[in-house]
Amino acid sequence: MDQRVTPPVDALLSPRSIAIIGASDDVTKTAARPLRYLREAGFPGAVYPIARRATVLGERAWPGLEALPERPDHAFVLLPTEGAMAAVEDCVRLGIPAVSVLASGFSETGPEGHAREEKLRQMLRGSSTRMLGPNSIGLANLNHRLVLTANAAFAEPNLPRGGTFVASQSGSMIGAILSRGRLKGLGFAGLVSVGSEVDLTMGEICERTLDDPEVTSYLLFLETLRGAAALRRFALGAAQRGKPVVAYKLGRSAAAAELAESHTGALAGEDDLADAFLRDCGIARVETLDGFLEAPALLAALPIRARGARAPVVGVVTTTGGGAAMVVDQLGIRGIAVEGPSPATRERLAQAGIAAGSGRILDLTLAGTKYEIMKAALDALRAGPEFDLVVAVAGSSSRFQPGLVVRPMVDAAAEAGTPLAAFCVPEAPEALAMLAEAGIPAFRSPEACADAIAAAFARREPRAAQATAPVASGPSRLLDEAEAYALLDRAGVPHAPAIAVPAATAGDVALPFDWPVVAKVLDARILHKSDVGGVVLGIRSAEELRAAAARITASVAAHLPDMAPDRLLVQAMAPSLGEVLVGYRLDAQLGPIVLLAAGGVLTEIYRDRSVRLAPVDLDTAQAMIAEVRALRALEGFRGRPRGDMAALAKAIVAVSHLGDLPGAGAGAVVLECEVNPLLVRAEGEGVMAVDALARVTGDG
Amino acid sequence: MDQRVTPPVDALLSPRSIAIIGASDDVTKTAARPLRYLREAGFPGAVYPIARRATVLGERAWPGLEALPERPDHAFVLLPTEGAMAAVEDCVRLGIPAVSVLASGFSETGPEGHAREEKLRQMLRGSSTRMLGPNSIGLANLNHRLVLTANAAFAEPNLPRGGTFVASQSGSMIGAILSRGRLKGLGFAGLVSVGSEVDLTMGEICERTLDDPEVTSYLLFLETLRGAAALRRFALGAAQRGKPVVAYKLGRSAAAAELAESHTGALAGEDDLADAFLRDCGIARVETLDGFLEAPALLAALPIRARGARAPVVGVVTTTGGGAAMVVDQLGIRGIAVEGPSPATRERLAQAGIAAGSGRILDLTLAGTKYEIMKAALDALRAGPEFDLVVAVAGSSSRFQPGLVVRPMVDAAAEAGTPLAAFCVPEAPEALAMLAEAGIPAFRSPEACADAIAAAFARREPRAAQATAPVASGPSRLLDEAEAYALLDRAGVPHAPAIAVPAATAGDVALPFDWPVVAKVLDARILHKSDVGGVVLGIRSAEELRAAAARITASVAAHLPDMAPDRLLVQAMAPSLGEVLVGYRLDAQLGPIVLLAAGGVLTEIYRDRSVRLAPVDLDTAQAMIAEVRALRALEGFRGRPRGDMAALAKAIVAVSHLGDLPGAGAGAVVLECEVNPLLVRAEGEGVMAVDALARVTGDG
Repeated sequence: MDQRVTPPVDALLSPRSIAIIGASDDVTKTAARPLRYLREAGFPGAVYPIARRATVLGERAWPGLEALPERPDHAFVLLPTEGAMAAVEDCVRLGIPAVSVLASGFSETGPEGHAREEKLRQMLRGSSTRMLGPNSIGLANLNHRLVLTANAAFAEPNLPRGGTFVASQSGSMIGAILSRGRLKGLGFAGLVSVGSEVDLTMGEICERTLDDPEVTSYLLFLETLRGAAALRRFALGAAQRGKPVVAYKLGRSAAAAELAESHTGALAGEDDLADAFLRDCGIARVETLDGFLEAPALLAALPIRARGARAPVVGVVTTTGGGAAMVVDQLGIRGIAVEGPSPATRERLAQAGIAAGSGRILDLTLAGTKYEIMKAALDALRAGPEFDLVVAVAGSSSRFQPGLVVRPMVDAAAEAGTPLAAFCVPEAPEALAMLAEAGIPAFRSPEACADAIAAAFARREPRAAQATAPVASGPSRLLDEAEAYALLDRAGVPHAPAIAVPAATAGDVALPFDWPVVAKVLDARILHKSDVGGVVLGIRSAEELRAAAARITASVAAHLPDMAPDRLLVQAMAPSLGEVLVGYRLDAQLGPIVLLAAGGVLTEIYRDRSVRLAPVDLDTAQAMIAEVRALRALEGFRGRPRGDMAALAKAIVAVSHLGDLPGAGAGAVVLECEVNPLLVRAEGEGVMAVDALARVTGDG
Repeated sequence: MDQRVTPPVDALLSPRSIAIIGASDDVTKTAARPLRYLREAGFPGAVYPIARRATVLGERAWPGLEALPERPDHAFVLLPTEGAMAAVEDCVRLGIPAVSVLASGFSETGPEGHAREEKLRQMLRGSSTRMLGPNSIGLANLNHRLVLTANAAFAEPNLPRGGTFVASQSGSMIGAILSRGRLKGLGFAGLVSVGSEVDLTMGEICERTLDDPEVTSYLLFLETLRGAAALRRFALGAAQRGKPVVAYKLGRSAAAAELAESHTGALAGEDDLADAFLRDCGIARVETLDGFLEAPALLAALPIRARGARAPVVGVVTTTGGGAAMVVDQLGIRGIAVEGPSPATRERLAQAGIAAGSGRILDLTLAGTKYEIMKAALDALRAGPEFDLVVAVAGSSSRFQPGLVVRPMVDAAAEAGTPLAAFCVPEAPEALAMLAEAGIPAFRSPEACADAIAAAFARREPRAAQATAPVASGPSRLLDEAEAYALLDRAGVPHAPAIAVPAATAGDVALPFDWPVVAKVLDARILHKSDVGGVVLGIRSAEELRAAAARITASVAAHLPDMAPDRLLVQAMAPSLGEVLVGYRLDAQLGPIVLLAAGGVLTEIYRDRSVRLAPVDLDTAQAMIAEVRALRALEGFRGRPRGDMAALAKAIVAVSHLGDLPGAGAGAVVLECEVNPLLVRAEGEGVMAVDALARVTGDG
């Protein structure tokens, strides 16, 4: 976070005066748009076009910032890259509090652009100027009649005002969100293209609006994750104020994910980490563009769930079996359960003359498409404690006769009860308007409906950043396996008993555990012990151990002639039901993270893993176990014996606390630790690490 | 397929005269709609409302069918269940060629409804009446001004006419498709609610329209799969005429799929089978409702792909990086590759002054949002042979300045080149209208865009049903393992050498293969040999074999005291890199199917398998191998040794031909065969079955 004094919020989002540097007189040019839009919006402050001509679009133009009668609050720089650099320098020199930069040509273009970006940072450092961009197409603050953008989609009268604040890393998307949102009845307080976030980040910008009573929800469009600390602060503030935050983030595709490599951080993948971060911040992440725009209304209606809340249950009532089945199918794909009414609710329905069949859906087709029936059904379902949300699906009548089944939704929602959402199967603009007016979240496609519901239910109370998050500095070193076990001992992660012995005399050492044992070369420099013949399994006697030691020494010497390791780790062997990988990493941006994955090549193929920001509690560890599909094989699947999942959860919690170990050396920070495999034994027998890697800062 | 004479197509879809049985005089009632809609549409033929009153909606009503001045072509029965049964009986008696039935209360309601449905079948059998429904909300044939439906969404003037024919198992969906399609610029030739398909099936109805020149594409909304043979005939006819068929089918969710059990058919799951069937018929299956309605235009532009066609490649050009990235991300999730231009195409772009960066997307943001640039970029991309489709993504300018980047799409598409599709990031109705008019498939969301593209590329030339599809009858029996190997021998599927020996003298038999061997109890009645101690592995001598035989005999006797099996199968053991399951099943509805799955519990958890209608050729077998993700571990993943995938493909082909084995006994039909496991050995060493189950008709 930038420690400089933050300028008054108004310089960026509600300036009194604006300079447009590089304003064009040619209405067909992008650089003509901001002045045009400001005038069309009726911006009440002073606007100073700066150009090499006397007038711009019929207004007086100015030759430069120095010529202006006042120091403007905000300068929007429309010049190309080099000119933009010079303009920012001018703004800094003159102490202009906010400058927005449209130009591209920075870090996205390679080393030269990186150098330019660094130069921008240097200019701003210690100055009283804060910058939006570069690569920002500008911003709009509709409650202040400020439309300071070059985005083509803002060329319309009566921009839809409302409570949603949008921040987007893609400039084009602010136009798309504005126009698509309008069609869905969404109104906007502001829209900001945050660009490359070289100075002001998305989190910092949104933070400035937290106490604006006209802002009631946030939409974030993310291409990547930047400025995590400020984003978390903002998200916490939003949650405290009950203002929901929805994110759409690019990067879900396997193509992106398969760049992953086999160590903990990379195995998780950038998108997995971002997902864990957003979740940890209580931000609802959607997967569809329509769901993104339709989610705010649902989030406003559905309270944020407590950590460790039970799996949600949705009730569905419909006048069209096929239409409702689309929603149920889409919810099922996303793991959200739809259940039929409880016996008590069935009884209430029966009293209203409605026979609930045995299915998961309350289908009113037989009962009839009538106001009284839908109203009674909604009242009964919304009175039952079994549902976290009731979804009402309206069929063809909603197009021209919304009085039949949409009006009862509006009337029902006016009374207390379980939150209600609606999906209209046909195109039904009148019904959607009625629902929007009544504040009932309504969806236009089964996919967006299920997407928003799944995102809403995945939302949990956000967590404050760790007060004492570890900070790494200085050189790092890898621990050898014995040192890694010492670290696990301190953390409270069980491992198979092991001792380090000199390779030369391995057979003479009295082992403090039983045969059979495994012998492994012990040297922090050797990451893949098996690849160099450094592991012998199933050793059953001192004799065999002696032979194994000789074999390992010879093989390692053959593979790595310059290394000459002289120690072995001898370790007890134990039966188990399965293996997992538990990893920890200190991410430069997100801080400590913890990962659970099933071990082996199949896990990589299936990308079957769960990642969270660390540390985690037992509830979260259990949720992680539930997310790794391979672990179902250890949970009594098809009559197989159950593994000790309670012990596994404890081990995950312990690994997740490697960043705040009691008694850690002052400067010692664990950068990375991978317990792989951790054996999962039968219920009651615990878990046991049988290999581990760790990297720590120098004196750890 | 029903063998009765098919009535003239017009009785169902273009009747000259219609009786509405149970027409209501109350305009607020469902049963008043058909008469109202027919009049509003200007239906030119005779319409006879049948009701217990003198007039209905101001028209003369008739007391019964017998009272009519002519025998109507088509009767639409709006009466409740019992009345509807009687009305159908009347229609049959009077020889009315087509009857449509709105009532529900048949097989969907349990045993009583099943009996009613059977009664309907009996009435119709041998008659000259064909029935639509029950549970049909009717149909519309817009080119004949026929709106014979009770669906509420048809209450509008100027229903959108066009070339799309819709058949839906959900009645409500015809209204949703009509209204949603209109908004997307789709026009309809007809819409039919096929209901429960007790008589006329979806395939038969669509088949009747194949030679209608006004019908150019089909949309099928499926809840389940019925009448597969007719559906296949229709799909083949549609492909021959170049009329694309798109299907949306419910049942994707894991909740539905997890009902699967562990034998071949169930392991595949109903939805997997339906998917294989639709694919085999050349029907494009979409996953999103918007993609369903937006796919026809794309399918019309993209030729159906040959079986064994290479993986498709998409090129993307855009004026908005973020907007295009949404499409690329969604394509990536669906396994569709987006690649950058080839060197030759880059050269053409450079000649036009466009620098293509190194990324997968041709981003014109730097070059500028201009007609000339987009036009030149499209011309260059569409001239390159590397792309199967070019997707142009238009940013905010498309909302109010479609001349900048949408007009060049229209102009480019007028010239020859690679097929073009478009996605507008903002809400851009004018641009979409321009694109629609130019016949360019255009999408409104990144999800629908990627969905339709993936469905289009998955479409392959359909296959005719097997001329000599096996038909099973009579009782069936399980083969023992030795008999199953004899079957595999005939099919050409390799297995590990094995001989059947008497358990009592197993140790005395000279084995025709080397040690080590495995001994297994040999009895068709024992399905799970290991569970009863019936398997001993790693036998290295005659002595050990003798001991193993004794152990097996004792253990099986202890577990199954009444059985006393007296034979063993002794089989050679062989090393392998991995195991798979290859299965075959004769499905009552779909005919023979073949399945490939990785063995073991993880496969069930990950639902990692591929299923096709049998028989398959080598290309298809290879495609199946590519679909089973676990098999990547045998394809050189992360430097692991490669398995003999060519031999695996041959084995899949061989198993898929179990339905048409040369020299099979006259009455012997293989109902089911599961080779599990089939060992996959190193490249060049082949594959080898080491266990197999089979069930055949009695004399097989």
